[in-house]
Amino acid sequence: MVWDAWGAPSGHKPLPEQIRGLLAQVFGVSGEPVTRRDEGDVPLRATAITSEQHAGLVAVVGAENVSADHRDRLRHAGGKSTPDLLRRRADGEQDAPDAIVFPADHDEVLAILAYCAENAIAVVPFGGGTSVVGGLDPVRGRFPTVIALDLRRLDTLTDVDPISGTATLGAGLTGPQAEELLAAQGLSLGHFPQSFEYASIGGFAATRSSGQASAGYGRFDDMIQRLRVATPGGSLDLGRAPASAAGPDLRELFAGSEGTLGVITAVTVRVHPVPETTAYQAWSFPDFTTGANALRTVIQTGANPTVLRLSDEAETGLNLARAGDIGGATVGGCLAITTFEGTPAHVEARKGEAEALLTAAGGTALGETPAREWEHGRFNAPYLRDALLDVGILCETLETATEWSNLANLKAKVTQALTDSLTAQGTPALVMCHISHTYQTGASLYFTVIAKQADDPITQWATAKRAAGDAIVAAAGTITHHHAVGADHRPWMTDEIGDLGVQVLRAVKQAIDPTGILNPGKLIP
Amino acid sequence: MVWDAWGAPSGHKPLPEQIRGLLAQVFGVSGEPVTRRDEGDVPLRATAITSEQHAGLVAVVGAENVSADHRDRLRHAGGKSTPDLLRRRADGEQDAPDAIVFPADHDEVLAILAYCAENAIAVVPFGGGTSVVGGLDPVRGRFPTVIALDLRRLDTLTDVDPISGTATLGAGLTGPQAEELLAAQGLSLGHFPQSFEYASIGGFAATRSSGQASAGYGRFDDMIQRLRVATPGGSLDLGRAPASAAGPDLRELFAGSEGTLGVITAVTVRVHPVPETTAYQAWSFPDFTTGANALRTVIQTGANPTVLRLSDEAETGLNLARAGDIGGATVGGCLAITTFEGTPAHVEARKGEAEALLTAAGGTALGETPAREWEHGRFNAPYLRDALLDVGILCETLETATEWSNLANLKAKVTQALTDSLTAQGTPALVMCHISHTYQTGASLYFTVIAKQADDPITQWATAKRAAGDAIVAAAGTITHHHAVGADHRPWMTDEIGDLGVQVLRAVKQAIDPTGILNPGKLIP
Repeated sequence: MVWDAWGAPSGHKPLPEQIRGLLAQVFGVSGEPVTRRDEGDVPLRATAITSEQHAGLVAVVGAENVSADHRDRLRHAGGKSTPDLLRRRADGEQDAPDAIVFPADHDEVLAILAYCAENAIAVVPFGGGTSVVGGLDPVRGRFPTVIALDLRRLDTLTDVDPISGTATLGAGLTGPQAEELLAAQGLSLGHFPQSFEYASIGGFAATRSSGQASAGYGRFDDMIQRLRVATPGGSLDLGRAPASAAGPDLRELFAGSEGTLGVITAVTVRVHPVPETTAYQAWSFPDFTTGANALRTVIQTGANPTVLRLSDEAETGLNLARAGDIGGATVGGCLAITTFEGTPAHVEARKGEAEALLTAAGGTALGETPAREWEHGRFNAPYLRDALLDVGILCETLETATEWSNLANLKAKVTQALTDSLTAQGTPALVMCHISHTYQTGASLYFTVIAKQADDPITQWATAKRAAGDAIVAAAGTITHHHAVGADHRPWMTDEIGDLGVQVLRAVKQAIDPTGILNPGKLIP
Repeated sequence: MVWDAWGAPSGHKPLPEQIRGLLAQVFGVSGEPVTRRDEGDVPLRATAITSEQHAGLVAVVGAENVSADHRDRLRHAGGKSTPDLLRRRADGEQDAPDAIVFPADHDEVLAILAYCAENAIAVVPFGGGTSVVGGLDPVRGRFPTVIALDLRRLDTLTDVDPISGTATLGAGLTGPQAEELLAAQGLSLGHFPQSFEYASIGGFAATRSSGQASAGYGRFDDMIQRLRVATPGGSLDLGRAPASAAGPDLRELFAGSEGTLGVITAVTVRVHPVPETTAYQAWSFPDFTTGANALRTVIQTGANPTVLRLSDEAETGLNLARAGDIGGATVGGCLAITTFEGTPAHVEARKGEAEALLTAAGGTALGETPAREWEHGRFNAPYLRDALLDVGILCETLETATEWSNLANLKAKVTQALTDSLTAQGTPALVMCHISHTYQTGASLYFTVIAKQADDPITQWATAKRAAGDAIVAAAGTITHHHAVGADHRPWMTDEIGDLGVQVLRAVKQAIDPTGILNPGKLIP
């Protein structure tokens, strides 16, 4: 990925004319992109790695797999949240890991962790680099030195079991790499978060990622059959069966551990045959409440679409769910997308049941096209965010989840908090929302916020984000449904799990990582 | 429940004539039931509770809720495994908790735990008393005194949310009590393990129970939305949303903690409307392999029956799945049961898809009757076990789970281990098996073992059980799919989660229960 934005250079396109017109009209910004710096010109904090430490790391992974190169350090300096990019683009010296280490396999990860524990080096596990919650910040904690442990070389597919529908994926495989290796065996994982093109298997597990097909294939944590974890104190191989009553499920302790309890090096996942067919159907609902109730009926009845999502009036109006039409003619109501994958008989049965329910609940079928358009553009939103940043617009997202009966309340409270905070700062905001993950008992809410950048946009967003986080906690939502905790959500972790819950996490960390080298400053308050 | 057997006195019936004939023929036992003792005649170890301790407990819960009565102690002396009952029926002094405490609510549980931690009293949390793995053994550990903490008074239904499909159940509610309270609101939990009639909500959570409708409604751990846990160090309220990425899922640390990390006092569960309709269909398969492959196809395709189970040739031959016909004319092949619950449209779609798949996979539909018969008799097996014990037959069950590709291997290895061990002891065994819980990636195996009792049946079974457990571990199964660990499976926990996994559990226990009063001798090696 490019160092100061999302994705590949080829994905970066100037804003369409209609969007620039809209921005001028609503936010009074000119729409002229700023000039971005060359990465070679960015001053980086000098590396703290000593030649002795460098030699120690090289002894484990070889000289070609330890880098203190300017470009490597800059590209491992953090994640891809809007504040990350604003910091990256700001003047002044940037912080970055002191070195990057690229281990080849589980045993090298183990050896690096043992070396770092003995030599007071903090370790930030690094997969695809797509964190949007500060999970990759090069925090040193009480250590003088921090390395990024880049897992990209752990990129194998092993133990493919088509009978059981399981396969073991190296932690460093990206979404597309994993799907390509599986497709060669006629299999698919079906995990398509917006970060899919860059994020890694280990990262999905370590952050409890959830993909756009979660209605059909579950969250990533649902897909995990086994986890292999390297820690300073040795290895863990967790998960012996599809389900077990042999005590607490320790997979669920390491899923979501965000590199603070160990480094996930391989994940045995549940896979399925490449779907024989996919059916698409888009829907329009008169309002968000009607649409949400319709989605609830579908998921509670068990009609099981593969994708089930609903944009609110604001998001629908801007066509944000239809990449080709963003900023085009305003659309009324709320757009919902359903897709159905599997055998023809399975798809037909599901689609028929879901259509009857959605129609009865007030939906109007819009045909296949809007659903196919959504799928076509579904990984592009971060590029649009970057183009908006270029022209002086603040654009960021946040997400939460709650029970169905609390969904409207939570949506209203978070929208109000964001709107109030940004208005009070002199930058009125447009707040849009969608449901992209549904459960029998509730759903996620994903907010996109757009406002004119203030003079200090980092503080501007931090203020709005704090208001939103407080509103989420006050309205009984979870502080994060699928972005994880990292550094950014850590202030709310005690609200989330209580003092005693925090003590439990600290006790586990103390047992596994007594020196505290693993990803300091993240997750655990 | 009666003190020395399963269930209510009314459930205990003499063995049918045809079974007594079969036993005489196969095992050479006469079939004359032994005379069982009156509970008043059983010598119990003297209570160790001091008058000061008694007064301390009374100060929390009131005099009427602390008992050192002979009958109460005997009825809290352990669970309902075959070894438990054999021990209960043996001559000599029996061990039992020194007192039974019946707290009224969460706060009283908290206060009792604080008192016990300060006064060196071990605590065995006690729900329905149905453990079959020694989870309720009155182990004192390093303490002079042990109490059973009977949660039956925590019996309320609160926070019913029909929109979200959630409800909060007191830990002491039994299965029927919970279903009755929910049914009054038009709701159902759908958790029907064989222990349903006596086991408790808290016990289901603490042991990761799985019910016979798990294909449709999931395991009990899947149903848990929130857990309220009392510990010596305070309360935990875990679970804020249907799903979350806010770090490790601590619910999964307390689900399956078997009273060693805290006392679960309330569980917010996922519920569903009382099904509008239920469809039944039984099947015959020519052999177990064909049947297992058929079940696999159904679950992997997503046809989602509510009940999906398969008896092997031995179990089918004895009609063990059809209570009314046990011991009747031998039936060939393998019997499978499917049921489908929900709205008529949902049931029709699922049933049609599943029937097509099962037929294509080699199944012959047998109609509704065998499936209804199975449902009618599904909670009765423990009574049959007790009647067999009465006439000198050893009857016990054990269970495991593995991936589909390993299922036949695991079944063969466990069957062989049990057969070899019991044959070597001079008591050739009949080993039967069924699949009662299916997952996309694998299934459970539930074994029923019948042999003539040796002179020392407790040692006889311990020897066979050890051989079976070793075979399970060697064949990569889990030591327990839904019976939990207790005391009986503890020897295999290090195989299950590794040394480092055990260290993690110990660290959590040390943080939460530093004095170690909670259920000593269970779960954690």
